[in-house]
Amino acid sequence: MRVVQVGTGKMSVFTMRYVRERGGEIVGAYVRRSAVGKDISELIGCEKTGVIIEKREDMDASLKRLKPDIAIVTTRSLIKELYEDLEVLARNHVNVVTICEEAFYPWDSNPIYAKKIDELAKKYGVTITGSGYQDVSWGSMVTALCATSASIKKIHGISSYNIEDYGLATASMHGSGLTMKEFEKEILEVNNVSEEKMKELISEANFLPGYMFPVNGWIASALELHPTKITQSAEATTHSTDLYSDTLKKTIPAGDATGLKTTVTTETEEGIVIVTECIGKVFAADEIDVNEWIIEGEPNMRFVMEKPATAEMTCACAVNRLPDIIAAEPGFVTTDKMPNLKFVRTFK
Amino acid sequence: MRVVQVGTGKMSVFTMRYVRERGGEIVGAYVRRSAVGKDISELIGCEKTGVIIEKREDMDASLKRLKPDIAIVTTRSLIKELYEDLEVLARNHVNVVTICEEAFYPWDSNPIYAKKIDELAKKYGVTITGSGYQDVSWGSMVTALCATSASIKKIHGISSYNIEDYGLATASMHGSGLTMKEFEKEILEVNNVSEEKMKELISEANFLPGYMFPVNGWIASALELHPTKITQSAEATTHSTDLYSDTLKKTIPAGDATGLKTTVTTETEEGIVIVTECIGKVFAADEIDVNEWIIEGEPNMRFVMEKPATAEMTCACAVNRLPDIIAAEPGFVTTDKMPNLKFVRTFK
Repeated sequence: MRVVQVGTGKMSVFTMRYVRERGGEIVGAYVRRSAVGKDISELIGCEKTGVIIEKREDMDASLKRLKPDIAIVTTRSLIKELYEDLEVLARNHVNVVTICEEAFYPWDSNPIYAKKIDELAKKYGVTITGSGYQDVSWGSMVTALCATSASIKKIHGISSYNIEDYGLATASMHGSGLTMKEFEKEILEVNNVSEEKMKELISEANFLPGYMFPVNGWIASALELHPTKITQSAEATTHSTDLYSDTLKKTIPAGDATGLKTTVTTETEEGIVIVTECIGKVFAADEIDVNEWIIEGEPNMRFVMEKPATAEMTCACAVNRLPDIIAAEPGFVTTDKMPNLKFVRTFK
Repeated sequence: MRVVQVGTGKMSVFTMRYVRERGGEIVGAYVRRSAVGKDISELIGCEKTGVIIEKREDMDASLKRLKPDIAIVTTRSLIKELYEDLEVLARNHVNVVTICEEAFYPWDSNPIYAKKIDELAKKYGVTITGSGYQDVSWGSMVTALCATSASIKKIHGISSYNIEDYGLATASMHGSGLTMKEFEKEILEVNNVSEEKMKELISEANFLPGYMFPVNGWIASALELHPTKITQSAEATTHSTDLYSDTLKKTIPAGDATGLKTTVTTETEEGIVIVTECIGKVFAADEIDVNEWIIEGEPNMRFVMEKPATAEMTCACAVNRLPDIIAAEPGFVTTDKMPNLKFVRTFK
């Protein structure tokens, strides 16, 4: 399997190594800014490979020369931001897996670009797919748990992460350290969209889905449920005592915002409700990252994963997906339409 | 879908109701001892159905009249004990799902009977399958978690249950309340088999697998791993303080046996080790049923299910499996060879 890597940040270090460990070959790598001219071995930490990181601008010419089977795209979080790269890849008949969060199931948050990408992929006979941590931890493990149900009323996912692990930009995006008044103005006005406003933004391809927004659509599709209403709401998280943030280099007073909780609720024709809560905040000493899913129905069920290693899991999922993507029919094929993800020791 | 129920104990109450909730029809029910002559509504708690529970001896004639598509068998834990019923069902061209623990993957513990049943099923063109709680909680959830791995060294499952929930016979089988000396003689001599003794027992179709023994083979098969060595060992569980058992109506002194832990270890050609620990004991006040799986590798991962509702989950899995079994090719087809189990709202 001949693979190219698009984006050479933190995640590419894992994806490129995992491809090589499975007997795949990284034949090219592209980046917009830094790292151009380096051998990819400087990122992976292996013997020299002769694969030199090229400028994004040279990707088209490079792909024509290299003729890879598939590209791993680890650059952006919204499918609109990916379109330009996807266009170049598809035109060169390169299949794509991306860990772009929205690409996991973009049909609800940006149907305009989802359709454009689907048409693009079909035109050139390639498959474009979103995978990552969510493919299993928010995907097949959840539908597996559902399969052990006699009946289901509600599927409820709660995922939390510590803002302290992600630096100042993320802290700022989550409103960590703001007073409630500031939070309302700076965070909620952007994130707390009404159903009408959401529809308007979607029709302009300008809606900003939370990390877990695509998960609701993926689960509904995997379970053959038909959504009737999707809402997204945001609120501040707080703590009962003062909390020092190493990232902010300040103490957040009790009652001020420690971060952001985004809740996506999907109602379905079948009467099953899907609720996902995504919580990014400055953790107190006794708090840890948790991925928790609760099924309400007969019987009530729950599983918990503590401190998931999201970076490694994201990259392992994307790489384990490569054979399925190459085997899939052309189009923007979300993984709910593929076999459940399998652990791949060696590419065949 | 026309379904017959074989065995009308506690589990049949769930399975029959779940079939009916999905639009299936229970057309017959058979039992060896009690309940003969009752309408199945007396078990399910619904309006009269006209389906009268028949004697096991009359099953052959009844099946010829009823022509069901599939049977749900909820009687015994070892495949050898099922053979007689399976023979009657297969001969009448009835597919079978059973919650018999060994049937989940019997090729290691009783290959002689597994082969006999496979031949039987093929001869009459039916599919015979083991499903239940293990299909998801010890099966597809585990392989899903594995799919998010970059590499795997060890797959480690730990399942525990409270002997107090299962009555005196189970307590006795687990040696609860015995002194260590008694435990050694009464429990370990039967359960702690050497590799040689295990091979001998298997060659005579007399090996007694622990509840989780079949799980190791199922996981290995699902992940396309090749076992080189399988061992089963047993040991007593103890508690650091005295523990009152309501089932035994006595206090178990600190250090005496509270129950039995059975460990099955599978080594594979691929270097991945599968270890399952099944722990049945009298619980202390702060202990609860747990189903826990740990993947050691890159990265380390873990999921936990607390207090799983095993009876409901077992029956829901078996019933959700019915369409897959009818669609499968003839033979003794274990579920690792089928699509991952899905939640089924309505039989199509």
